[in-house]
Amino acid sequence: MTVTILFAAPEARWADYEAPLHAALRETGLDYRLGLSFPPEEVDYIVYAPESHVQDFTPYTRLKAVLNLWAGVEGVVGNETLKAPLARMVDAEGLTQGMVEYVTGHVMRHHLGMDAQIVNPEHEWDPVMPPLARDRPVTILGLGTLGQACAHALTGIGFPVTGWSRTPKDVSGVTCLHGEDGFRHALEHAQILVLLLPDTPDTADTLDTRAIERMPRGAFVINPGRGALIDDDALLAALDAGEVAHATLDVFRQEPLPKGHPYWAHPCVTVTPHIASETRPPSASRVIAENIRRGEAGKPFLHLVDRDAGY
Amino acid sequence: MTVTILFAAPEARWADYEAPLHAALRETGLDYRLGLSFPPEEVDYIVYAPESHVQDFTPYTRLKAVLNLWAGVEGVVGNETLKAPLARMVDAEGLTQGMVEYVTGHVMRHHLGMDAQIVNPEHEWDPVMPPLARDRPVTILGLGTLGQACAHALTGIGFPVTGWSRTPKDVSGVTCLHGEDGFRHALEHAQILVLLLPDTPDTADTLDTRAIERMPRGAFVINPGRGALIDDDALLAALDAGEVAHATLDVFRQEPLPKGHPYWAHPCVTVTPHIASETRPPSASRVIAENIRRGEAGKPFLHLVDRDAGY
Repeated sequence: MTVTILFAAPEARWADYEAPLHAALRETGLDYRLGLSFPPEEVDYIVYAPESHVQDFTPYTRLKAVLNLWAGVEGVVGNETLKAPLARMVDAEGLTQGMVEYVTGHVMRHHLGMDAQIVNPEHEWDPVMPPLARDRPVTILGLGTLGQACAHALTGIGFPVTGWSRTPKDVSGVTCLHGEDGFRHALEHAQILVLLLPDTPDTADTLDTRAIERMPRGAFVINPGRGALIDDDALLAALDAGEVAHATLDVFRQEPLPKGHPYWAHPCVTVTPHIASETRPPSASRVIAENIRRGEAGKPFLHLVDRDAGY
Repeated sequence: MTVTILFAAPEARWADYEAPLHAALRETGLDYRLGLSFPPEEVDYIVYAPESHVQDFTPYTRLKAVLNLWAGVEGVVGNETLKAPLARMVDAEGLTQGMVEYVTGHVMRHHLGMDAQIVNPEHEWDPVMPPLARDRPVTILGLGTLGQACAHALTGIGFPVTGWSRTPKDVSGVTCLHGEDGFRHALEHAQILVLLLPDTPDTADTLDTRAIERMPRGAFVINPGRGALIDDDALLAALDAGEVAHATLDVFRQEPLPKGHPYWAHPCVTVTPHIASETRPPSASRVIAENIRRGEAGKPFLHLVDRDAGY
């Protein structure tokens, strides 16, 4: 029987995804149809992005799963009309590797103190040797797929990495902490702090004044996670006071970051335009096709969202 | 019998090295004396830097070895008064790891296109996704200790790495080329080119107009090797013409780079002040102590220079 797959992400994405999705679906051997519009009651799977025109799932009476194109599901996880399983994107090849590259690059940038040489209007020759990575403790908040992959990459370069997560985790080569006490300890030695927590009510404003006060003076903050993880006023005050040396921010409560936002003009803030991690169509399409294959074969879906936890 | 060790590097280094050298020498269990001045005929070993006041080795009649503090020996290898073995510094912990960190950091910087976000006066939100590392070919010229270590680090992140060396080498995970034909092939796909050749008459002006013409338009050049590897006029012309997108240079024919040098003012050049790799006193002292221990035990010295090849 033909499997009907609705592509319900903003239409601009269709140009990126049509060919790779067909390529990946053909490899499953399934008899399928894929398109931008079908009668709701005929749809088996929805390939979804939270900005989709589909916000009421009630008419999709035979829906077997919603397959999110992105890792973040905060725009759909609370949708009470959605009864079918919801899978997030875990695209190791594109999304995870992209995040690893962004985090590795910006950790190295701050570690080496590159900015002083990239912007050096007085042409000063000032040979200050950075410490070696082994003397630069890095803390990652969040030890999900992305946090663990970044931790591995950074320990591979030589950084001592501490990771913190809500629940206990065990990651080889990484000092793993959890809970409230663990949170305080994780911040205490963080010369570079990377935020990779999911966006949940519990994680809002994780980096607030109290958290910043726990960190060593002059630390670097890198946020490729979610905008809501940071209390923006607290961070700006800490940057003004020199408590935080520099913040490199890829995600914001409002995107694109509004023109007048103080982050843009702050000399100790680097704004990157939500490029840390993005699913790449070829690899993401293979993940989606695999989940459809599993659904049709009666196997459990990969990367299901725990809708109570919110991620 | 007491081993006499002369520290014949510029005196400013003594403050950095006195304590770590004593610590490392004490661990050998040898009976030794270490200082800035001894009668030449009593000296067994010279800890050396090419800017040393010792330029005539003739009076050092019982000299067993000259132990260079740095990797580069071009300032001493041609000294015809030196008859004793000459060892260069191979400080895996400090020098090699420092180079790996510098190269990794600046490769990631160019790969991710960070500069457009670090310097963004118009506050433009321009989400251009960089390719993944696996789609960014990197070429390393020079596959000695430093080149191989950098190649390993970059393949670990996912870059396809091509390495070129004068003589054939075999490095796991790296496409190894050699000779003149290999040189041309190594340049052809180099989106990022890293120069890590030794400074010899053969390697002068390795990156000249002809070599640059072999590279894809818009490539990045990173030179943490030696200043003389680059034909500076050719590179400046290629930067002006957009043939090379950006050069990050750590070493120069004259250091510090003179104030008026065109590299300083060029918008597509980043000058770093010879910080890519520096021996760190604790680890370098252990390497020197180990060579003295070996010399006293009648064992072959580590890291001997091939004085005919010049490195």
